[in-house]
Amino acid sequence: MSPFRLSILGVGLLGGSVGLAVKRHLTTCEIVGYGHSRDTLEKALRFGAVDRISSTPQQAVADADLILLATPVGVFGKILKELVAAVKPGAIVTDVGSTKRSVVEQGEHLLPAHAAFVGSHPIAGSEKRGIDFARADLLTDALCILTPTPRTPPPALEQVESFWRALGMRTTRMDPAHHDHVLADVSHLPHALAAAVVNLQAEEALGVAGRGFADSTRIAGGDPGLWRDILLDNRDAVLSSLDRLSAQVQHLRQALERGDADALERFLAAAAARRAKLPPNAGGVRRAEIGP
Amino acid sequence: MSPFRLSILGVGLLGGSVGLAVKRHLTTCEIVGYGHSRDTLEKALRFGAVDRISSTPQQAVADADLILLATPVGVFGKILKELVAAVKPGAIVTDVGSTKRSVVEQGEHLLPAHAAFVGSHPIAGSEKRGIDFARADLLTDALCILTPTPRTPPPALEQVESFWRALGMRTTRMDPAHHDHVLADVSHLPHALAAAVVNLQAEEALGVAGRGFADSTRIAGGDPGLWRDILLDNRDAVLSSLDRLSAQVQHLRQALERGDADALERFLAAAAARRAKLPPNAGGVRRAEIGP
Repeated sequence: MSPFRLSILGVGLLGGSVGLAVKRHLTTCEIVGYGHSRDTLEKALRFGAVDRISSTPQQAVADADLILLATPVGVFGKILKELVAAVKPGAIVTDVGSTKRSVVEQGEHLLPAHAAFVGSHPIAGSEKRGIDFARADLLTDALCILTPTPRTPPPALEQVESFWRALGMRTTRMDPAHHDHVLADVSHLPHALAAAVVNLQAEEALGVAGRGFADSTRIAGGDPGLWRDILLDNRDAVLSSLDRLSAQVQHLRQALERGDADALERFLAAAAARRAKLPPNAGGVRRAEIGP
Repeated sequence: MSPFRLSILGVGLLGGSVGLAVKRHLTTCEIVGYGHSRDTLEKALRFGAVDRISSTPQQAVADADLILLATPVGVFGKILKELVAAVKPGAIVTDVGSTKRSVVEQGEHLLPAHAAFVGSHPIAGSEKRGIDFARADLLTDALCILTPTPRTPPPALEQVESFWRALGMRTTRMDPAHHDHVLADVSHLPHALAAAVVNLQAEEALGVAGRGFADSTRIAGGDPGLWRDILLDNRDAVLSSLDRLSAQVQHLRQALERGDADALERFLAAAAARRAKLPPNAGGVRRAEIGP
């Protein structure tokens, strides 16, 4: 799919990176950007992530073939309500949200019958935010999960899939609710836990932290408002992930309490073996691999 | 301190890196290496991490001014018992172990009165193991915690401190038991948790893992036997860290259950703010900082 006109709502890290990637890979596409900050919009224009900027979502989407919601998950509903009346017949709306069930429901509920909603979750990003960190290769080789429902028109799904592939992404499909359960385990739980691990440290402990601590808690540096919304939006799945974490921790704790060296080693060896099977391109192209 | 002769027992990642750093910074020092694997010893010799190799700990330490225990924590006791009779008067024994209370007790108990034990914990390493990953700059700018007791002769403490500083490390001092509590929070707990987080994932979830998951669980790839011994050796402190983690998780869970957006955001914001204060050189010189 090479949309004639793309509208990006929210030109931060992800929206900006999509813009830069489109300019690199889909050179005939015109991009209109919208965002709540004039400064950010002008930066996006200067960086070449968008061709034009609009001061309202309505204006930004008026002639768009593909509309990309790239604002934080918490404001998707508000933005969708603002833009629905302006969406042209045949337009496709997609997004980059970290949760999918609620946004897909809202999209399908709010959009007029002449437009289609297709949920997307490009698994790429950073604990950093904003257009300053956008880069044309952020999505390269990373995975995009599409979350169609029985209401998704197959041609719209295929067009959105082609769009992400044209930007160098791998794609897969999942049911929105299933997506949210899987992501609760592999993304939302680790974020919440990293915050819990940081919060329990004394100042003195932070002063002697090594690279293991720094890497394992890097995600705790993510934007608090953004992650608050993700956790709330995916509350039930995250609570269920926390239950399954408790079971694992209980298992480990009991092995430790009874000094069971074999059980401890099995627990650690299972984790090491499973982690070794992570796809080498988890999160996209491996840039400078971190040293020991 | 520029020891005439250094003995390194265990020439893996850390022992090998110390050897390479000594050859770079303390050029007149002669290094004798010992290890249970002939292959590893010969590699250490080829890499220039040691000048000579010995087939027994006794032989390796016979003429040493400074003796460095760099085997896994679990075999410190055995190695100490083997070498005590061969330690020359005035020699200093130190180590690189991740736990300190038990090794310092053993060192002080087993060594003859004419030698001194000084506990050291260089906070540097990797989930990788072995001489193949050794590097002369592994310790550069990283922190070494020394753990003296009332029985530690001050000149021996100062000599060991000078030794690590000569290799480019920063140093600090802590009581051995206090060290073990602090490290349980900032190192042993994160390792155990990373393993728990990996173990609860379905295969499908690992297949869609992003960089956040990859980084936050990298330490789960550590050597299972090594970490089993660390957790067992520091059992009480790790159990207490697990209690404090449970309290944090409970707090987060309750905020999520009642949909308390403010409490969630405060929790996440506190973590982000505290993590932002991590020393920039946590774990040593920052090599290629990882991208978004």
